[in-house]
Amino acid sequence: MEVLLENPALRIYALCSAVLGVKMLASAVYTGTRRQKVGGFINPEDANTFGQPGAVAKSEEAPEVAHALRIQRNDLENIPLFFAVGLIYVLTGAAPVGAAVFCGVFTLARVAHTIAYIRRAQPARAICFVTGALCTLVMIFRIVVNVL
Amino acid sequence: MEVLLENPALRIYALCSAVLGVKMLASAVYTGTRRQKVGGFINPEDANTFGQPGAVAKSEEAPEVAHALRIQRNDLENIPLFFAVGLIYVLTGAAPVGAAVFCGVFTLARVAHTIAYIRRAQPARAICFVTGALCTLVMIFRIVVNVL
Amino acid sequence: MEVLLENPALRIYALCSAVLGVKMLASAVYTGTRRQKVGGFINPEDANTFGQPGAVAKSEEAPEVAHALRIQRNDLENIPLFFAVGLIYVLTGAAPVGAAVFCGVFTLARVAHTIAYIRRAQPARAICFVTGALCTLVMIFRIVVNVL
Repeated sequence: MEVLLENPALRIYALCSAVLGVKMLASAVYTGTRRQKVGGFINPEDANTFGQPGAVAKSEEAPEVAHALRIQRNDLENIPLFFAVGLIYVLTGAAPVGAAVFCGVFTLARVAHTIAYIRRAQPARAICFVTGALCTLVMIFRIVVNVL
Repeated sequence: MEVLLENPALRIYALCSAVLGVKMLASAVYTGTRRQKVGGFINPEDANTFGQPGAVAKSEEAPEVAHALRIQRNDLENIPLFFAVGLIYVLTGAAPVGAAVFCGVFTLARVAHTIAYIRRAQPARAICFVTGALCTLVMIFRIVVNVL
Repeated sequence: MEVLLENPALRIYALCSAVLGVKMLASAVYTGTRRQKVGGFINPEDANTFGQPGAVAKSEEAPEVAHALRIQRNDLENIPLFFAVGLIYVLTGAAPVGAAVFCGVFTLARVAHTIAYIRRAQPARAICFVTGALCTLVMIFRIVVNVL
Protein backbone atom coordinates (compact mmCIF):
# COMPACT_ATOMS: atom_id res chain seq x y z
CA MET A 1 0.00 0.00 0.00
CA GLU A 2 2.93 2.34 0.73
CA VAL A 3 3.88 2.09 -2.94
CA LEU A 4 0.42 3.25 -3.96
CA LEU A 5 0.47 6.15 -1.50
CA GLU A 6 3.77 7.38 -2.94
CA ASN A 7 2.02 7.88 -6.27
CA PRO A 8 1.09 11.58 -6.58
CA ALA A 9 -1.65 10.84 -9.15
CA LEU A 10 -3.40 8.52 -6.69
CA ARG A 11 -3.19 11.15 -3.95
CA ILE A 12 -4.77 13.77 -6.21
CA TYR A 13 -7.54 11.35 -7.20
CA ALA A 14 -8.12 10.48 -3.53
CA LEU A 15 -8.45 14.13 -2.51
CA CYS A 16 -10.84 14.91 -5.40
CA SER A 17 -12.95 11.89 -4.46
CA ALA A 18 -13.03 13.07 -0.84
CA VAL A 19 -14.36 16.46 -1.95
CA LEU A 20 -16.98 14.83 -4.20
CA GLY A 21 -18.00 12.44 -1.42
CA VAL A 22 -18.63 15.31 0.99
CA LYS A 23 -20.54 17.12 -1.78
CA MET A 24 -22.81 14.09 -2.34
CA LEU A 25 -23.55 13.77 1.37
CA ALA A 26 -24.22 17.52 1.54
CA SER A 27 -26.69 17.19 -1.37
CA ALA A 28 -28.53 14.46 0.55
CA VAL A 29 -28.78 16.79 3.56
CA TYR A 30 -29.99 19.59 1.26
CA THR A 31 -32.79 17.36 -0.09
CA GLY A 32 -33.74 16.41 3.49
CA THR A 33 -33.95 20.03 4.60
CA ARG A 34 -36.13 20.91 1.56
CA ARG A 35 -38.44 17.99 2.38
CA GLN A 36 -38.66 19.03 6.03
CA LYS A 37 -39.28 22.68 5.10
CA VAL A 38 -42.26 22.05 2.83
CA GLY A 39 -43.47 18.97 4.74
CA GLY A 40 -43.19 17.01 1.49
CA PHE A 41 -43.24 13.48 2.90
CA ILE A 42 -43.99 10.64 0.51
CA ASN A 43 -43.77 7.73 2.97
CA PRO A 44 -46.59 7.79 5.58
CA GLU A 45 -44.13 6.63 8.25
CA ASP A 46 -41.97 9.70 7.52
CA ALA A 47 -44.92 12.09 7.82
CA ASN A 48 -45.86 10.48 11.16
CA THR A 49 -42.35 10.60 12.58
CA PHE A 50 -40.89 13.82 11.21
CA GLY A 51 -43.92 15.89 10.16
CA GLN A 52 -45.99 18.42 12.06
CA PRO A 53 -48.81 16.84 14.14
CA GLY A 54 -51.47 15.69 11.69
CA ALA A 55 -49.13 15.71 8.70
CA VAL A 56 -50.05 13.28 5.93
CA ALA A 57 -47.97 11.77 3.14
CA LYS A 58 -48.21 13.29 -0.34
CA SER A 59 -48.69 11.15 -3.43
CA GLU A 60 -46.00 13.01 -5.34
CA GLU A 61 -42.86 15.00 -4.59
CA ALA A 62 -43.25 18.72 -3.86
CA PRO A 63 -41.62 20.88 -6.59
CA GLU A 64 -38.85 22.05 -4.26
CA VAL A 65 -38.04 18.47 -3.20
CA ALA A 66 -38.17 17.21 -6.80
CA HIS A 67 -35.71 19.96 -7.72
CA ALA A 68 -33.29 18.83 -4.98
CA LEU A 69 -33.70 15.19 -6.07
CA ARG A 70 -32.79 16.15 -9.65
CA ILE A 71 -29.51 17.60 -8.35
CA GLN A 72 -28.76 14.27 -6.68
CA ARG A 73 -29.85 12.30 -9.72
CA ASN A 74 -27.54 14.24 -12.00
CA ASP A 75 -24.72 13.54 -9.54
CA LEU A 76 -25.55 9.83 -9.60
CA GLU A 77 -25.23 9.81 -13.38
CA ASN A 78 -21.79 11.42 -13.26
CA ILE A 79 -19.88 11.06 -9.97
CA PRO A 80 -19.85 7.24 -9.49
CA LEU A 81 -18.66 7.02 -13.11
CA PHE A 82 -15.83 9.40 -12.20
CA PHE A 83 -14.95 7.33 -9.12
CA ALA A 84 -14.40 4.31 -11.38
CA VAL A 85 -12.84 6.02 -14.39
CA GLY A 86 -10.54 8.21 -12.27
CA LEU A 87 -9.24 5.24 -10.28
CA ILE A 88 -8.64 3.09 -13.37
CA TYR A 89 -6.96 6.07 -15.03
CA VAL A 90 -4.61 6.40 -12.05
CA LEU A 91 -4.02 2.64 -11.70
CA THR A 92 -3.13 2.35 -15.39
CA GLY A 93 -0.39 4.95 -15.08
CA ALA A 94 -1.78 8.49 -15.17
CA ALA A 95 0.85 11.22 -15.00
CA PRO A 96 0.44 13.48 -11.94
CA VAL A 97 -0.17 16.52 -14.16
CA GLY A 98 -2.90 14.72 -16.09
CA ALA A 99 -4.55 13.54 -12.88
CA ALA A 100 -4.40 17.06 -11.44
CA VAL A 101 -5.98 18.59 -14.55
CA PHE A 102 -8.72 16.06 -15.30
CA CYS A 103 -9.66 15.02 -11.75
CA GLY A 104 -9.32 18.59 -10.52
CA VAL A 105 -11.40 20.19 -13.27
CA PHE A 106 -14.03 17.45 -12.96
CA THR A 107 -14.32 18.08 -9.22
CA LEU A 108 -14.60 21.85 -9.61
CA ALA A 109 -17.13 21.43 -12.43
CA ARG A 110 -19.37 19.16 -10.33
CA VAL A 111 -19.25 21.46 -7.28
CA ALA A 112 -20.08 24.39 -9.56
CA HIS A 113 -22.84 22.30 -11.18
CA THR A 114 -24.58 21.90 -7.82
CA ILE A 115 -24.29 25.62 -7.05
CA ALA A 116 -25.65 26.48 -10.52
CA TYR A 117 -28.52 24.00 -10.09
CA ILE A 118 -29.50 25.48 -6.70
CA ARG A 119 -29.35 29.02 -8.14
CA ARG A 120 -31.21 27.82 -11.28
CA ALA A 121 -28.45 29.38 -13.39
CA GLN A 122 -28.50 28.38 -17.04
CA PRO A 123 -26.48 27.97 -19.25
CA ALA A 124 -23.92 27.88 -16.38
CA ARG A 125 -25.24 24.51 -15.20
CA ALA A 126 -25.08 23.01 -18.70
CA ILE A 127 -21.50 24.25 -19.12
CA CYS A 128 -20.52 22.60 -15.81
CA PHE A 129 -22.16 19.33 -16.88
CA VAL A 130 -20.40 19.27 -20.26
CA THR A 131 -17.05 20.19 -18.67
CA GLY A 132 -17.30 17.27 -16.25
CA ALA A 133 -18.39 14.85 -18.96
CA LEU A 134 -15.49 15.92 -21.19
CA CYS A 135 -12.98 15.31 -18.37
CA THR A 136 -14.46 11.83 -17.92
CA LEU A 137 -14.27 11.19 -21.66
CA VAL A 138 -10.61 12.25 -21.84
CA MET A 139 -9.73 9.94 -18.93
CA ILE A 140 -11.55 7.07 -20.65
CA PHE A 141 -9.53 7.77 -23.80
CA ARG A 142 -6.29 7.77 -21.76
CA ILE A 143 -7.25 4.45 -20.14
CA VAL A 144 -7.72 2.84 -23.56
CA VAL A 145 -4.37 4.22 -24.79
CA ASN A 146 -2.56 3.09 -21.61
CA VAL A 147 -4.01 -0.42 -21.71
CA LEU A 148 -3.62 -1.22 -25.41
CA MET B 1 -1.96 -8.77 -6.72
CA GLU B 2 -0.79 -11.23 -4.04
CA VAL B 3 0.52 -8.25 -2.06
CA LEU B 4 -2.91 -6.63 -2.12
CA LEU B 5 -4.63 -9.88 -1.05
CA GLU B 6 -2.32 -10.16 1.97
CA ASN B 7 -3.74 -6.86 3.25
CA PRO B 8 -6.42 -7.63 5.85
CA ALA B 9 -8.10 -4.23 5.39
CA LEU B 10 -8.64 -4.94 1.68
CA ARG B 11 -10.10 -8.36 2.48
CA ILE B 12 -12.56 -6.82 4.92
CA TYR B 13 -13.55 -4.18 2.38
CA ALA B 14 -13.96 -6.85 -0.31
CA LEU B 15 -16.25 -8.96 1.89
CA CYS B 16 -18.38 -5.96 2.86
CA SER B 17 -18.69 -4.98 -0.79
CA ALA B 18 -19.74 -8.54 -1.66
CA VAL B 19 -22.54 -8.37 0.94
CA LEU B 20 -23.66 -4.96 -0.33
CA GLY B 21 -23.56 -6.15 -3.94
CA VAL B 22 -25.85 -9.10 -3.15
CA LYS B 23 -28.11 -6.72 -1.23
CA MET B 24 -28.40 -4.37 -4.23
CA LEU B 25 -29.24 -7.24 -6.58
CA ALA B 26 -31.80 -8.53 -4.05
CA SER B 27 -33.41 -5.07 -3.93
CA ALA B 28 -33.75 -5.13 -7.72
CA VAL B 29 -35.47 -8.52 -7.48
CA TYR B 30 -37.72 -7.15 -4.71
CA THR B 31 -38.80 -4.26 -6.95
CA GLY B 32 -39.47 -6.70 -9.79
CA THR B 33 -41.66 -8.92 -7.61
CA ARG B 34 -43.66 -5.86 -6.39
CA ARG B 35 -44.17 -4.76 -9.99
CA GLN B 36 -45.27 -8.25 -11.04
CA LYS B 37 -47.61 -8.58 -8.04
CA VAL B 38 -49.56 -5.37 -8.68
CA GLY B 39 -49.19 -5.51 -12.48
CA GLY B 40 -47.58 -2.07 -12.32
CA PHE B 41 -45.92 -1.98 -15.71
CA ILE B 42 -44.83 1.38 -17.09
CA ASN B 43 -43.39 0.23 -20.41
CA PRO B 44 -46.07 -1.12 -22.80
CA GLU B 45 -43.66 -3.85 -23.96
CA ASP B 46 -43.36 -5.03 -20.33
CA ALA B 47 -47.12 -5.21 -19.86
CA ASN B 48 -47.45 -7.22 -23.09
CA THR B 49 -44.66 -9.64 -22.24
CA PHE B 50 -44.96 -10.10 -18.47
CA GLY B 51 -48.51 -8.94 -17.61
CA GLN B 52 -51.77 -10.84 -17.46
CA PRO B 53 -53.53 -11.13 -20.85
CA GLY B 54 -54.94 -7.71 -21.69
CA ALA B 55 -52.66 -5.88 -19.25
CA VAL B 56 -51.90 -2.26 -20.19
CA ALA B 57 -49.06 0.00 -19.14
CA LYS B 58 -49.71 2.55 -16.39
CA SER B 59 -48.70 6.19 -16.75
CA GLU B 60 -47.20 6.28 -13.26
CA GLU B 61 -45.64 3.87 -10.78
CA ALA B 62 -47.97 1.99 -8.43
CA PRO B 63 -47.45 3.04 -4.77
CA GLU B 64 -45.94 -0.32 -3.84
CA VAL B 65 -43.50 -0.21 -6.77
CA ALA B 66 -42.60 3.43 -6.06
CA HIS B 67 -41.84 2.40 -2.47
CA ALA B 68 -39.49 -0.35 -3.66
CA LEU B 69 -37.84 2.06 -6.12
CA ARG B 70 -37.19 4.53 -3.27
CA ILE B 71 -35.31 1.78 -1.42
CA GLN B 72 -33.11 1.29 -4.47
CA ARG B 73 -32.70 5.02 -4.98
CA ASN B 74 -31.52 5.53 -1.42
CA ASP B 75 -29.00 2.72 -1.97
CA LEU B 76 -27.78 4.40 -5.16
CA GLU B 77 -27.12 7.60 -3.23
CA ASN B 78 -25.05 5.77 -0.61
CA ILE B 79 -23.58 2.42 -1.67
CA PRO B 80 -21.62 3.38 -4.82
CA LEU B 81 -20.13 6.21 -2.76
CA PHE B 82 -19.05 3.62 -0.18
CA PHE B 83 -17.55 1.41 -2.90
CA ALA B 84 -15.27 4.30 -3.90
CA VAL B 85 -14.54 5.78 -0.47
CA GLY B 86 -13.94 2.39 1.16
CA LEU B 87 -11.51 1.31 -1.54
CA ILE B 88 -9.56 4.58 -1.50
CA TYR B 89 -9.51 4.40 2.32
CA VAL B 90 -7.99 0.90 2.12
CA LEU B 91 -5.57 1.78 -0.71
CA THR B 92 -4.28 4.81 1.22
CA GLY B 93 -3.36 2.69 4.22
CA ALA B 94 -6.37 1.92 6.41
CA ALA B 95 -5.58 -0.08 9.54
CA PRO B 96 -7.42 -3.45 9.62
CA VAL B 97 -9.29 -2.43 12.79
CA GLY B 98 -10.48 0.81 11.20
CA ALA B 99 -11.59 -1.01 8.05
CA ALA B 100 -13.44 -3.61 10.14
CA VAL B 101 -15.26 -0.94 12.14
CA PHE B 102 -16.19 1.55 9.41
CA CYS B 103 -16.79 -0.86 6.51
CA GLY B 104 -18.51 -3.35 8.82
CA VAL B 105 -20.82 -0.85 10.50
CA PHE B 106 -21.64 0.74 7.13
CA THR B 107 -22.61 -2.64 5.70
CA LEU B 108 -24.75 -3.60 8.69
CA ALA B 109 -26.39 -0.16 8.67
CA ARG B 110 -27.33 -0.41 4.99
CA VAL B 111 -28.73 -3.94 5.31
CA ALA B 112 -30.74 -2.76 8.33
CA HIS B 113 -31.82 0.33 6.34
CA THR B 114 -33.43 -1.87 3.69
CA ILE B 115 -35.20 -4.00 6.30
CA ALA B 116 -36.44 -0.86 8.09
CA TYR B 117 -37.62 0.62 4.77
CA ILE B 118 -39.58 -2.54 3.88
CA ARG B 119 -41.14 -2.64 7.35
CA ARG B 120 -41.76 1.13 7.18
CA ALA B 121 -40.03 1.51 10.54
CA GLN B 122 -39.17 5.08 11.51
CA PRO B 123 -37.02 6.46 13.11
CA ALA B 124 -35.11 3.15 12.73
CA ARG B 125 -34.59 3.80 9.00
CA ALA B 126 -33.33 7.34 9.60
CA ILE B 127 -30.89 6.08 12.24
CA CYS B 128 -29.53 3.50 9.79
CA PHE B 129 -29.12 6.15 7.10
CA VAL B 130 -27.26 8.53 9.42
CA THR B 131 -25.05 5.71 10.75
CA GLY B 132 -24.01 4.74 7.23
CA ALA B 133 -23.39 8.36 6.22
CA LEU B 134 -21.25 8.96 9.33
CA CYS B 135 -19.10 5.89 8.54
CA THR B 136 -18.59 7.26 5.02
CA LEU B 137 -17.71 10.68 6.41
CA VAL B 138 -15.14 9.26 8.84
CA MET B 139 -13.50 7.27 6.03
CA ILE B 140 -13.37 10.43 3.87
CA PHE B 141 -11.70 12.25 6.79
CA ARG B 142 -9.15 9.43 7.16
CA ILE B 143 -8.40 9.53 3.41
CA VAL B 144 -7.62 13.24 3.62
CA VAL B 145 -5.39 12.70 6.68
CA ASN B 146 -3.58 9.77 5.04
CA VAL B 147 -2.96 11.61 1.79
CA LEU B 148 -1.84 15.00 3.12
CA MET C 1 1.60 0.96 -11.08
CA GLU C 2 3.59 -0.87 -13.76
CA VAL C 3 2.96 -4.12 -11.85
CA LEU C 4 -0.79 -3.52 -12.02
CA LEU C 5 -0.66 -2.72 -15.74
CA GLU C 6 1.14 -6.01 -16.44
CA ASN C 7 -1.91 -7.84 -15.09
CA PRO C 8 -4.04 -8.94 -18.08
CA ALA C 9 -7.18 -9.23 -15.92
CA LEU C 10 -6.89 -5.57 -14.91
CA ARG C 11 -6.43 -4.54 -18.53
CA ILE C 12 -9.56 -6.43 -19.57
CA TYR C 13 -11.53 -4.86 -16.71
CA ALA C 14 -10.20 -1.40 -17.65
CA LEU C 15 -11.26 -1.79 -21.30
CA CYS C 16 -14.73 -3.03 -20.34
CA SER C 17 -15.14 -0.11 -17.94
CA ALA C 18 -14.09 2.28 -20.71
CA VAL C 19 -16.80 0.89 -23.01
CA LEU C 20 -19.41 1.12 -20.24
CA GLY C 21 -18.35 4.66 -19.38
CA VAL C 22 -18.81 5.81 -22.98
CA LYS C 23 -22.17 4.00 -23.04
CA MET C 24 -23.34 5.86 -19.90
CA LEU C 25 -22.32 9.23 -21.33
CA ALA C 26 -24.07 8.34 -24.61
CA SER C 27 -27.25 7.50 -22.67
CA ALA C 28 -27.12 10.93 -21.02
CA VAL C 29 -26.83 12.53 -24.47
CA TYR C 30 -29.74 10.36 -25.68
CA THR C 31 -31.94 11.61 -22.82
CA GLY C 32 -30.93 15.19 -23.61
CA THR C 33 -31.85 14.84 -27.28
CA ARG C 34 -35.25 13.32 -26.35
CA ARG C 35 -35.92 16.22 -23.98
CA GLN C 36 -34.92 18.77 -26.63
CA LYS C 37 -37.03 17.05 -29.30
CA VAL C 38 -40.30 17.08 -27.34
CA GLY C 39 -39.52 20.31 -25.46
CA GLY C 40 -39.98 18.38 -22.22
CA PHE C 41 -38.29 20.77 -19.82
CA ILE C 42 -38.96 20.36 -16.11
CA ASN C 43 -36.81 23.21 -14.80
CA PRO C 44 -38.14 26.66 -15.82
CA GLU C 45 -34.56 27.86 -16.34
CA ASP C 46 -34.05 25.05 -18.89
CA ALA C 47 -37.21 25.95 -20.81
CA ASN C 48 -36.11 29.60 -20.92
CA THR C 49 -32.57 28.83 -22.04
CA PHE C 50 -32.97 25.82 -24.34
CA GLY C 51 -36.66 25.83 -25.33
CA GLN C 52 -38.43 27.46 -28.24
CA PRO C 53 -39.45 31.10 -27.58
CA GLY C 54 -42.36 31.02 -25.14
CA ALA C 55 -41.59 27.48 -23.94
CA VAL C 56 -42.73 26.72 -20.39
CA ALA C 57 -41.63 24.05 -17.96
CA LYS C 58 -43.78 20.92 -17.59
CA SER C 59 -44.77 19.57 -14.17
CA GLU C 60 -43.90 16.02 -15.14
CA GLU C 61 -41.58 14.24 -17.56
CA ALA C 62 -42.82 13.65 -21.13
CA PRO C 63 -43.28 9.90 -21.86
CA GLU C 64 -40.35 9.82 -24.26
CA VAL C 65 -38.05 11.53 -21.74
CA ALA C 66 -39.23 9.28 -18.91
CA HIS C 67 -38.43 6.28 -21.11
CA ALA C 68 -34.88 7.55 -21.68
CA LEU C 69 -34.50 8.26 -17.94
CA ARG C 70 -35.51 4.66 -17.16
CA ILE C 71 -32.68 3.43 -19.37
CA GLN C 72 -30.25 5.54 -17.35
CA ARG C 73 -31.79 4.49 -14.06
CA ASN C 74 -31.41 0.82 -14.89
CA ASP C 75 -27.78 1.50 -15.75
CA LEU C 76 -27.29 3.26 -12.41
CA GLU C 77 -28.58 0.18 -10.60
CA ASN C 78 -26.15 -2.10 -12.40
CA ILE C 79 -23.05 -0.43 -13.87
CA PRO C 80 -21.55 1.32 -10.78
CA LEU C 81 -21.99 -2.02 -8.97
CA PHE C 82 -20.00 -3.66 -11.77
CA PHE C 83 -17.28 -0.99 -11.54
CA ALA C 84 -16.77 -1.91 -7.87
CA VAL C 85 -17.27 -5.68 -8.08
CA GLY C 86 -15.16 -6.05 -11.23
CA LEU C 87 -12.25 -4.10 -9.75
CA ILE C 88 -12.33 -6.00 -6.43
CA TYR C 89 -12.57 -9.25 -8.40
CA VAL C 90 -9.44 -8.30 -10.35
CA LEU C 91 -7.56 -6.96 -7.29
CA THR C 92 -8.25 -10.17 -5.36
CA GLY C 93 -6.66 -12.31 -8.04
CA ALA C 94 -9.02 -12.94 -10.95
CA ALA C 95 -7.62 -15.18 -13.67
CA PRO C 96 -7.45 -13.44 -17.07
CA VAL C 97 -9.88 -15.95 -18.60
CA GLY C 98 -12.41 -15.35 -15.82
CA ALA C 99 -12.08 -11.59 -16.17
CA ALA C 100 -12.51 -11.85 -19.95
CA VAL C 101 -15.65 -13.98 -19.62
CA PHE C 102 -17.45 -12.20 -16.78
CA CYS C 103 -16.42 -8.59 -17.50
CA GLY C 104 -16.80 -9.13 -21.23
CA VAL C 105 -20.23 -10.75 -21.09
CA PHE C 106 -21.44 -8.13 -18.59
CA THR C 107 -20.33 -5.33 -20.91
CA LEU C 108 -21.96 -6.87 -23.99
CA ALA C 109 -25.15 -7.57 -22.01
CA ARG C 110 -25.42 -3.96 -20.81
CA VAL C 111 -24.81 -2.50 -24.28
CA ALA C 112 -27.42 -4.90 -25.67
CA HIS C 113 -29.76 -3.94 -22.77
CA THR C 114 -29.70 -0.30 -23.87
CA ILE C 115 -30.36 -1.22 -27.50
CA ALA C 116 -33.23 -3.50 -26.45
CA TYR C 117 -34.68 -0.76 -24.22
CA ILE C 118 -34.57 1.82 -27.02
CA ARG C 119 -36.20 -0.67 -29.43
CA ARG C 120 -38.70 -1.69 -26.69
CA ALA C 121 -37.76 -5.32 -27.30
CA GLN C 122 -38.97 -7.75 -24.65
CA PRO C 123 -38.04 -10.33 -23.46
CA ALA C 124 -34.66 -9.45 -25.03
CA ARG C 125 -34.19 -6.61 -22.52
CA ALA C 126 -35.01 -8.84 -19.55
CA ILE C 127 -32.55 -11.48 -20.78
CA CYS C 128 -29.80 -8.85 -21.04
CA PHE C 129 -30.58 -7.61 -17.52
CA VAL C 130 -30.47 -11.11 -16.03
CA THR C 131 -27.27 -11.97 -17.92
CA GLY C 132 -25.52 -8.91 -16.53
CA ALA C 133 -26.78 -9.55 -13.00
CA LEU C 134 -25.60 -13.17 -13.14
CA CYS C 135 -22.10 -12.08 -14.23
CA THR C 136 -22.02 -9.68 -11.27
CA LEU C 137 -23.20 -12.43 -8.93
CA VAL C 138 -20.53 -14.87 -10.13
CA MET C 139 -17.82 -12.24 -9.63
CA ILE C 140 -19.13 -11.56 -6.10
CA PHE C 141 -18.96 -15.31 -5.40
CA ARG C 142 -15.37 -15.44 -6.71
CA ILE C 143 -14.41 -12.46 -4.50
CA VAL C 144 -15.71 -14.26 -1.41
CA VAL C 145 -13.84 -17.45 -2.36
CA ASN C 146 -10.61 -15.54 -3.09
CA VAL C 147 -10.71 -13.58 0.17
CA LEU C 148 -11.67 -16.33 2.61
